[in-house]
Amino acid sequence: MADSDKHILLMDGPDTKGLIYHVTGVLFRHNFNIIHNDEYVSPSGQFFMRTEFEAGVTHESINGPELLDELRSVIPAGITLRLNPKKKKNIVVMVTKEHHCLAELLIRYAFDELDADILAVVSNYNTLQPLVSKFGIPFHYISHEHRTREEHEEAILRTLAIYQPEYLVLAKYMRVLTPGFVNHFPNRIINIHHSFLPAFIGANPYRQAYERGVKIIGATAHFVNNDLDEGPIIAQNVKGVDHRHTAADMATEGKDVEKIVLSQALKLVFNDRVFIQGNRAIVL
Amino acid sequence: MADSDKHILLMDGPDTKGLIYHVTGVLFRHNFNIIHNDEYVSPSGQFFMRTEFEAGVTHESINGPELLDELRSVIPAGITLRLNPKKKKNIVVMVTKEHHCLAELLIRYAFDELDADILAVVSNYNTLQPLVSKFGIPFHYISHEHRTREEHEEAILRTLAIYQPEYLVLAKYMRVLTPGFVNHFPNRIINIHHSFLPAFIGANPYRQAYERGVKIIGATAHFVNNDLDEGPIIAQNVKGVDHRHTAADMATEGKDVEKIVLSQALKLVFNDRVFIQGNRAIVL
Amino acid sequence: MADSDKHILLMDGPDTKGLIYHVTGVLFRHNFNIIHNDEYVSPSGQFFMRTEFEAGVTHESINGPELLDELRSVIPAGITLRLNPKKKKNIVVMVTKEHHCLAELLIRYAFDELDADILAVVSNYNTLQPLVSKFGIPFHYISHEHRTREEHEEAILRTLAIYQPEYLVLAKYMRVLTPGFVNHFPNRIINIHHSFLPAFIGANPYRQAYERGVKIIGATAHFVNNDLDEGPIIAQNVKGVDHRHTAADMATEGKDVEKIVLSQALKLVFNDRVFIQGNRAIVL
Amino acid sequence: MADSDKHILLMDGPDTKGLIYHVTGVLFRHNFNIIHNDEYVSPSGQFFMRTEFEAGVTHESINGPELLDELRSVIPAGITLRLNPKKKKNIVVMVTKEHHCLAELLIRYAFDELDADILAVVSNYNTLQPLVSKFGIPFHYISHEHRTREEHEEAILRTLAIYQPEYLVLAKYMRVLTPGFVNHFPNRIINIHHSFLPAFIGANPYRQAYERGVKIIGATAHFVNNDLDEGPIIAQNVKGVDHRHTAADMATEGKDVEKIVLSQALKLVFNDRVFIQGNRAIVL
Repeated sequence: MADSDKHILLMDGPDTKGLIYHVTGVLFRHNFNIIHNDEYVSPSGQFFMRTEFEAGVTHESINGPELLDELRSVIPAGITLRLNPKKKKNIVVMVTKEHHCLAELLIRYAFDELDADILAVVSNYNTLQPLVSKFGIPFHYISHEHRTREEHEEAILRTLAIYQPEYLVLAKYMRVLTPGFVNHFPNRIINIHHSFLPAFIGANPYRQAYERGVKIIGATAHFVNNDLDEGPIIAQNVKGVDHRHTAADMATEGKDVEKIVLSQALKLVFNDRVFIQGNRAIVL
Repeated sequence: MADSDKHILLMDGPDTKGLIYHVTGVLFRHNFNIIHNDEYVSPSGQFFMRTEFEAGVTHESINGPELLDELRSVIPAGITLRLNPKKKKNIVVMVTKEHHCLAELLIRYAFDELDADILAVVSNYNTLQPLVSKFGIPFHYISHEHRTREEHEEAILRTLAIYQPEYLVLAKYMRVLTPGFVNHFPNRIINIHHSFLPAFIGANPYRQAYERGVKIIGATAHFVNNDLDEGPIIAQNVKGVDHRHTAADMATEGKDVEKIVLSQALKLVFNDRVFIQGNRAIVL
Repeated sequence: MADSDKHILLMDGPDTKGLIYHVTGVLFRHNFNIIHNDEYVSPSGQFFMRTEFEAGVTHESINGPELLDELRSVIPAGITLRLNPKKKKNIVVMVTKEHHCLAELLIRYAFDELDADILAVVSNYNTLQPLVSKFGIPFHYISHEHRTREEHEEAILRTLAIYQPEYLVLAKYMRVLTPGFVNHFPNRIINIHHSFLPAFIGANPYRQAYERGVKIIGATAHFVNNDLDEGPIIAQNVKGVDHRHTAADMATEGKDVEKIVLSQALKLVFNDRVFIQGNRAIVL
Repeated sequence: MADSDKHILLMDGPDTKGLIYHVTGVLFRHNFNIIHNDEYVSPSGQFFMRTEFEAGVTHESINGPELLDELRSVIPAGITLRLNPKKKKNIVVMVTKEHHCLAELLIRYAFDELDADILAVVSNYNTLQPLVSKFGIPFHYISHEHRTREEHEEAILRTLAIYQPEYLVLAKYMRVLTPGFVNHFPNRIINIHHSFLPAFIGANPYRQAYERGVKIIGATAHFVNNDLDEGPIIAQNVKGVDHRHTAADMATEGKDVEKIVLSQALKLVFNDRVFIQGNRAIVL
């Protein structure tokens, strides 16, 4: 059975008794197979459930809108329901000059390991054009020079409008985005920050890390909201360093952490495993 | 509401459609609160579910035998059901001469962090008697000298019979137990092995690790079955080393890993979070 | 040869050509064995060397003051030289109410694994007196109630004056020390902070970590200077968490990290392996 | 000053008093700058030293053969001395069908982060030819079909003879090499094995890991000698898994570990930081 026959049901809202019972009852009556089912109830009483299921081979196929209606009829009104067919996401990647995260995504994409299609790469420099061209993906060089921040973002938005990406991945895009821009993609922009947030917010985190004399460096993949480096954290990882590492050494070592953490976070997001609750990411 | 009002339902058996639906239905009709619910279906089609629930404050209390009967009536016969009130386990700890794992357990027990009561400590040496006596716990020195292996184990079994422990924890007990002994405690003996199993099975793993020149050492907490160091693995952890570490240095560094891994594994087991499937531990 | 026959030479100062050559030349002419020799030159040109050596069995014993004079005669004046016999340090441990770090130190001390003698424990609560008394170590309960901060610190200083410790270990001492107090022990106070500094400076780091939704928690052992949580970092470690961990769960999980990191940092300090350069700890 | 002006002196042999003194004396008299100096003496009395140094700007340049002669005149005959200018190594990469390690090396090479030049890629399948061709590197498809093992290796050796590589990197080359082949490249073949050696030697380590139910998987970069998976270990790393990971999931997760560990190991080897002592790698 192909992935396209699989669906993912996402529910979140105030917890009440019987939510699992009622929802699994609907799937049971349709004779659907539950492949994975994960729930979480937060200390504040918020319920989250991700159910991956499929129609049995000899049974009815999945009619999304009808199924959603039926599910809505058995659960309280305050619960949000989403039903996604299991499929690759469409994304655009934004970069500046550093190649390591972009290259990681390109290689995974080229070998069908990304759970997404890279529609295009957008950059404020043309440095990485040769790399991107190796993979036959459109590269849009949109310089920020001689443009106001708003003009620059407008130009980017015009390009993005061509591709209509579901997610925007900032793979070392080194400019701060305005709230105006971010609001176009609510919970749909993922950034990799080169520190173990919330340590070393802002510019030059490895320089800050060196000066503070930390013994571990890290990287953080997070959703972008309107506060710099403050959105919900999806994944983090770290690596030991010592006094022998200069800030430049830390940056070099850190790249390996950054690219892997970003890839791990994208895998979670692209498989519909991440819910957002306030400033926290719930990963089921 | 005290822990004693909470119950844990454990189910495992061949997966069929509707298991979650039927079980949560029973709990829903009794008006019980599901606190945590975790399921897993193995690739071979085995279903596992752990449901932590409690009776609501104004509602009926939980009658275990009746509830089990009712649950059995809605699920297929091949499913194993267990219903445990949430409470501390009773354990006996067995040791030889090394103190670090035992001390870790004693301190956690003394500060009510073990999820278990240590009824007694049994050792084939009296080395650790002074440590145990600080904590007011019975210490049984049962030497293996001048006894056959069977006589020694018989003596231990007579002592264990006094305490009737639910679990036996081998906190660096350095003698191999016979199948005859192990059979008295099926899936109820937990051992800490001082290597990253299956590397370095058997004696002197740090010496073996040194000679092999590994760059990481580890420790493994596992259930004991009749094959030495071969039972289901509950938890593992590791630590980096380098060529400067002698075998003795590795043993010293390894102790920190061993005691924490053992504690983590016990926490999982004592909270009824571990199922056994063949030679694998399923941790929900 | 006992540890007392071993010495550790510590050098630091501006790098110039020939420092290793001149110093090893002196040791060579005395026929001393170099057991370990580690150097580091910082990017700013500061030289650090730690040399562990011993007199050969049939040769002259080590006369510290004479040897220091001789070494000073072959190196530039700006280099700081220290010569320590290899031996245990004398320490006092300060705590508040949490037991886990203190217990770790007491157990290591009881089994001669601490590289230090715990002369006494000082606390602003009497909560941990029963634990300390098990190990036969003086416990000084010096309440901060009905005292100004200065009066409280004066009382502590009077007690410390009895013991003359080389190092003060803050094993979860939850009060901020004044600069006046800290100045009595320059680079001789070691603290364990329950976060991955510089993230979550100050109070309630696990609460902060929970609210920020981090995926990794950590602990930091550092020297105390006059800025809260800002002294040179000696050791750090981390542990993965997820959205299921409440702030209380993080605190519980974090304890295992805290106590091991503190022990590791103390081992480094007590073996004269830590130099301080500005706000950075150089570990050789 | 360019890297080409830097040299690396490598010494190993039986430890005797004064080795550091005599060698640093020669460098001091030539007015050379020691940039890094690392030593290690094994418990069995073997001395290892790696000294990175450079000629001062206004001073004599480094005459390798003369300097080696002079160094040999001040140290015992049993010590091995090597003097390498600091420069990139020439390598050939061998692969089968999996792309992840090769792609990692190609990207690093393309962005000058590998400390080596990839002269060619050799494979027993043509699967990865399109990837390699993106980077303008010769790809030699040398099928093992219709050839005996010896004929196949002969064909590979003829191709390698064209390039005369200093190192051969097996980036998931899935065939066992004969001793006859290995002997052509003593301590010059580096392999990545997809397990935490010595666990799961041989074929299908992730399948083995799944069946054993391990909670951590790993990867090992090691030199190849004549015993399969038994050569000196250069670097290892690990990643947590749980019962939800199938063998295929483990393989997917493991790829991220494999490619990073291989890169780390190569960085060490290509910077002349790895000595071999019996079956152990000493990394200075």
